[in-house]
Amino acid sequence: MNSEPIGVFDSGVGGLTVLSALRTTLPHENFLYLGDTARVPYGNKSASTIQRYALEATHYLLKQDIKLLVIGCNTVTAEALATLQAEFPDLPIIGVIEPGALRALQASKTQQIGVLATRATLQSGAYDRTIKQHANDAQVFTYSAPLLVPLAEEGWLSGEVATQTVQKYLQQVLKHSIDCLLLGCTHYPLFVPLIQSLLPEHITLVDSATTTAQATLLQLQKMGLENKQDHHGSMQFYVTDDPLEFSNIGRLFLGQEIFPQTVHLTGLKPF
Amino acid sequence: MNSEPIGVFDSGVGGLTVLSALRTTLPHENFLYLGDTARVPYGNKSASTIQRYALEATHYLLKQDIKLLVIGCNTVTAEALATLQAEFPDLPIIGVIEPGALRALQASKTQQIGVLATRATLQSGAYDRTIKQHANDAQVFTYSAPLLVPLAEEGWLSGEVATQTVQKYLQQVLKHSIDCLLLGCTHYPLFVPLIQSLLPEHITLVDSATTTAQATLLQLQKMGLENKQDHHGSMQFYVTDDPLEFSNIGRLFLGQEIFPQTVHLTGLKPF
Repeated sequence: MNSEPIGVFDSGVGGLTVLSALRTTLPHENFLYLGDTARVPYGNKSASTIQRYALEATHYLLKQDIKLLVIGCNTVTAEALATLQAEFPDLPIIGVIEPGALRALQASKTQQIGVLATRATLQSGAYDRTIKQHANDAQVFTYSAPLLVPLAEEGWLSGEVATQTVQKYLQQVLKHSIDCLLLGCTHYPLFVPLIQSLLPEHITLVDSATTTAQATLLQLQKMGLENKQDHHGSMQFYVTDDPLEFSNIGRLFLGQEIFPQTVHLTGLKPF
Repeated sequence: MNSEPIGVFDSGVGGLTVLSALRTTLPHENFLYLGDTARVPYGNKSASTIQRYALEATHYLLKQDIKLLVIGCNTVTAEALATLQAEFPDLPIIGVIEPGALRALQASKTQQIGVLATRATLQSGAYDRTIKQHANDAQVFTYSAPLLVPLAEEGWLSGEVATQTVQKYLQQVLKHSIDCLLLGCTHYPLFVPLIQSLLPEHITLVDSATTTAQATLLQLQKMGLENKQDHHGSMQFYVTDDPLEFSNIGRLFLGQEIFPQTVHLTGLKPF
């Protein structure tokens, strides 16, 4: 059981930053990553569509005997975590929203927290709701930064365009007196060095990739599910459409070559 | 028959620049625009998937009695125009690639032509192939500019980030001695003023939206299908997922309020 893999599900490549953090925190675990690239992006789809896709993906990963599921995607976490938990009560499932929200509350002294995310994630209200569930007097300020996703996928993580784009988004952020900025999109951890260099020192930066990896470690320890092997764990990649672009961007996101395999989810038939 | 609408099909919002050009060129025509927003973007999907989606969309529009179909999307034109023409031999179908390619060949004295497009469109080889079909000694240089799509959808059509992004892409373009630059993505016409201001004078800029509208006018005249009514034609919008974001971006692209209606294409069932 303990050597069984951890499933990581995302609509596309963004979850690879979560996988990267998981590999650092849990080097002995085996991972199966599923990117639903035939249907990416999920951000502009309705909640019921996202729930259906997430159920299909989880069924697929369960057939590969995963011991735990990490949802490496803010949109799926916001729209489908509760649905998945109800449908699969025996599978531990970790989303990317609560770990980041809890870490932000720990890091903030003033309880005035900024959240930088995509429009879809902010519209779901999930960060605001989750933060206030744990601290109902917290103030949450949200900012959308949609261009950071394509900038990351273009590989423009520094340089003039990236710097000016981040500066333009941070101008909005700095209008409020926050002392913690939470990155609520799985693409954004790639910009941590740039954002850190442009953010005033009194604002703590929290990203959901490393916090989700930490939450996964705690969950495995709690359930006694850690893999005790002493060699490095493996990674396998499944995508639902042409693997070429995923490989190209994946190399950039993970810093190594990856060789994804195309699979068909139930009811999907992309080819 | 002549008052029947012209169908315009795109995977999302990009085709609205084509619709905008069509409205200017053909103010008396009625238009039905279908944006397959539940499955956008098509660029990362396989040819057979795109062909299947395009067939579904055309069947849908034919049920609304369109007299002519404009494919307002480079990816669909590249991957599915021939399939659609074979499947619907009685329907005049106009893609966005050939009109732009022909206009570029007319505009260029040196027959050295640059094409700025998305990675998917360039990978299809459709512009290179089409230009060389008409002038086999033409030289075609291609450049991908993927960030212009999200910049357009963010509404950043001028200002520092847009200017520097365009400049960065034009640096690649100016390495070759072209005398004509063809914009091979339906989002790019929104950047015509900016690109024009940064492009050396001896390079003619050609966009596929206005050239496609011109080709549509000629086709209607040739077939005697023009609408002779003397009042302005109507526009109706169908989308396959939540209409809200489409309305927001559509306002930006068309310069007026639009009220799309959500429809289900055969076999799609997005909800």
